Amino acid sequence: MVMTHYLDNSATTKPSEASMRAAVEALELYGNPSSVHSEGVRSKHLLDASRAKIAEALGVKRINGGSVIFTSSGTEANCTAILGYSEAKKRFRSGKAPTVIITEGEHPSVENPTLRLKEKGWNVFRIPTRGGELDVDALRTFLATAENVVLAAMMLVNNETGALYDVKRAASIIHTAFPECHVHCDAVQAFMKIKLSVSILGVDSMTVSAHKIHAPRGAAALWISADTVKKKNIIPVLPGGGQEMGFRSGTENLVAISAFAAAAAEEKAGLAENIEKVEKLRGYLESSLDELAKEGVAVKRPVSFVPHIVNITLPRIKSETMLNFLSGKGIFVSAGSACSASSGRLSHALRAFGCPDDVIDSSLRVSLSHTNTEADIDALCTALAEGVRTLARF
Amino acid sequence: MVMTHYLDNSATTKPSEASMRAAVEALELYGNPSSVHSEGVRSKHLLDASRAKIAEALGVKRINGGSVIFTSSGTEANCTAILGYSEAKKRFRSGKAPTVIITEGEHPSVENPTLRLKEKGWNVFRIPTRGGELDVDALRTFLATAENVVLAAMMLVNNETGALYDVKRAASIIHTAFPECHVHCDAVQAFMKIKLSVSILGVDSMTVSAHKIHAPRGAAALWISADTVKKKNIIPVLPGGGQEMGFRSGTENLVAISAFAAAAAEEKAGLAENIEKVEKLRGYLESSLDELAKEGVAVKRPVSFVPHIVNITLPRIKSETMLNFLSGKGIFVSAGSACSASSGRLSHALRAFGCPDDVIDSSLRVSLSHTNTEADIDALCTALAEGVRTLARF
Repeated sequence: MVMTHYLDNSATTKPSEASMRAAVEALELYGNPSSVHSEGVRSKHLLDASRAKIAEALGVKRINGGSVIFTSSGTEANCTAILGYSEAKKRFRSGKAPTVIITEGEHPSVENPTLRLKEKGWNVFRIPTRGGELDVDALRTFLATAENVVLAAMMLVNNETGALYDVKRAASIIHTAFPECHVHCDAVQAFMKIKLSVSILGVDSMTVSAHKIHAPRGAAALWISADTVKKKNIIPVLPGGGQEMGFRSGTENLVAISAFAAAAAEEKAGLAENIEKVEKLRGYLESSLDELAKEGVAVKRPVSFVPHIVNITLPRIKSETMLNFLSGKGIFVSAGSACSASSGRLSHALRAFGCPDDVIDSSLRVSLSHTNTEADIDALCTALAEGVRTLARF
Repeated sequence: MVMTHYLDNSATTKPSEASMRAAVEALELYGNPSSVHSEGVRSKHLLDASRAKIAEALGVKRINGGSVIFTSSGTEANCTAILGYSEAKKRFRSGKAPTVIITEGEHPSVENPTLRLKEKGWNVFRIPTRGGELDVDALRTFLATAENVVLAAMMLVNNETGALYDVKRAASIIHTAFPECHVHCDAVQAFMKIKLSVSILGVDSMTVSAHKIHAPRGAAALWISADTVKKKNIIPVLPGGGQEMGFRSGTENLVAISAFAAAAAEEKAGLAENIEKVEKLRGYLESSLDELAKEGVAVKRPVSFVPHIVNITLPRIKSETMLNFLSGKGIFVSAGSACSASSGRLSHALRAFGCPDDVIDSSLRVSLSHTNTEADIDALCTALAEGVRTLARF
């Protein structure tokens, strides 16, 4: 059996032992949390305990800290924030077309709901992200003459470049100009990778997802502010039995939710140590890549970035070619976001970063976890060196 | 430890051994099915195999049999069919307000999206279901003068009364009057409880759910006809990365999906035997309840019904009172749908059946599985007899 090296942790992560144990335990707790008998109540208790753990991991333990709504995926959480808010807003909107602000290079689960709004007559403004930072001057210029800006959705960490955006600053600028604007943050790639607290960010809602933090797929959370709850500023995209305080219907997936909570608690406890470990791994990776610099291998460096995502430019070797070469050696990385990998289109996140087409076409994303080792990096760099020497260039 | 008797299988079922084994195995297969490396491809293969199993369970193995779209819940599948179709239809609709047909007493995941359409100007027609059958005369009378009927959504089995509706006949009547009308069927309470094939029903889409057939919560499927796929008659309610052939985005919950497929294959293999077992159990339950008839305990009998759902009328004892009494003895039933149990409103499904308020207020739903035994029925009936003698009446 070939030894494998999984370096695609921004696509999804391997569930931890604690998380799998929680999943298996929850499999046994089969009562419907909405059932009033004791089998249902046991499930309800586990659901409540899981919600409290996620709230704590988000730094919203205190009173008036808003609510945690469980969804099936980060996509569903983002869609609930964007489409759900747009539906709520429709009920009390003025004659003017509303405006939504996003960043260039958002994940498809933000970009595509936004296009849906555009189709319905909304104006869309995209904050430029050249070099991997939010262009706040462009944002300010836009806001100076903008009207009816009711919604903004910004990712905290770009999933392809690893750029860490100053969402706190942008949210503050937007709220100053339009105090009633709902500011949503997609923090899927930031949660448990950097220190993060919703109260400090100053946003009105935030998405985090289980399967990026060593829990299985099937659960994510949308945190919404107390004000959003109070004003019922979000209409569910999945109306039905009224679960999740009416914000999201469907029988709760306790297996995935409980595993998510277990992973969040574990990651929260080890956060400082894990960040340090990933920073060291990144340093080790960058030094190893430096030795390939003369062969034309380069690392893209956003203005500010998270340690766990490293976007590499290859010397005119197609991403796919290298990716398959590495996969054959048991080394798993990606050409960009897994979500758009199958579409075959060139990454708009890298374009927004400022990359020309040939660079986009020869980019690899390496995404680290604290579970990786220097041996993974060694295997990657040895294989990269061989690939760079032997693979066809365009 | 008290011996428990779970008789609330229409709320949710206990996952089977095979289903839990599949879930645990899938926990290990952590690659993102959208990733092109071999870890992702392994997940993709399991996803494809699971889809094939569900298609087979639905009786749509042949070519041109439409597509199976995995969702996170029956609610999401129903919302995708109803709201997704309404969004698609908007793009090519005429000036006239469109009409949607549902039945009285639908599950909230059909009723509430329909109310959303009503809010947007749609006409809603509800087929009466008095006595537990679709009033096709009322449907015909409505259709004779109706215009622009574009959507219908009908449950196959009522989750509270166990009434089995003649959806095949109603679908045919609707399609004869409006050939382009999309007819959706919520078959959540019918799947693996009766013999069922989408091709025979003559509907355009159908919802089935994992956790009602001894799989864990977190997966459901929306089957859509080849014609619906071809015409792109459904717009995703969760737009994003384009998974599930573009009909539903979000990283696939392989754990729940694989467990769903395992349960479906197992239930399909044992279907005839399981139906026979549940019919016998129901017969045994009805005979036992007969002995309580003189105390005022009655069974509601729809015109046509499935064996696994038995709705009981108590002699002026509040549902909640009896439910808690039984729960204290380790016997788990429900007052109605778990999804609306917490709302505290009187069941509109029972009202549509023709029950007066006092009957609705003293109804219990017993829902059987082939995993139940006569001992469960004995425990229930002994406790019911005691409850009927001792509990306060209103």
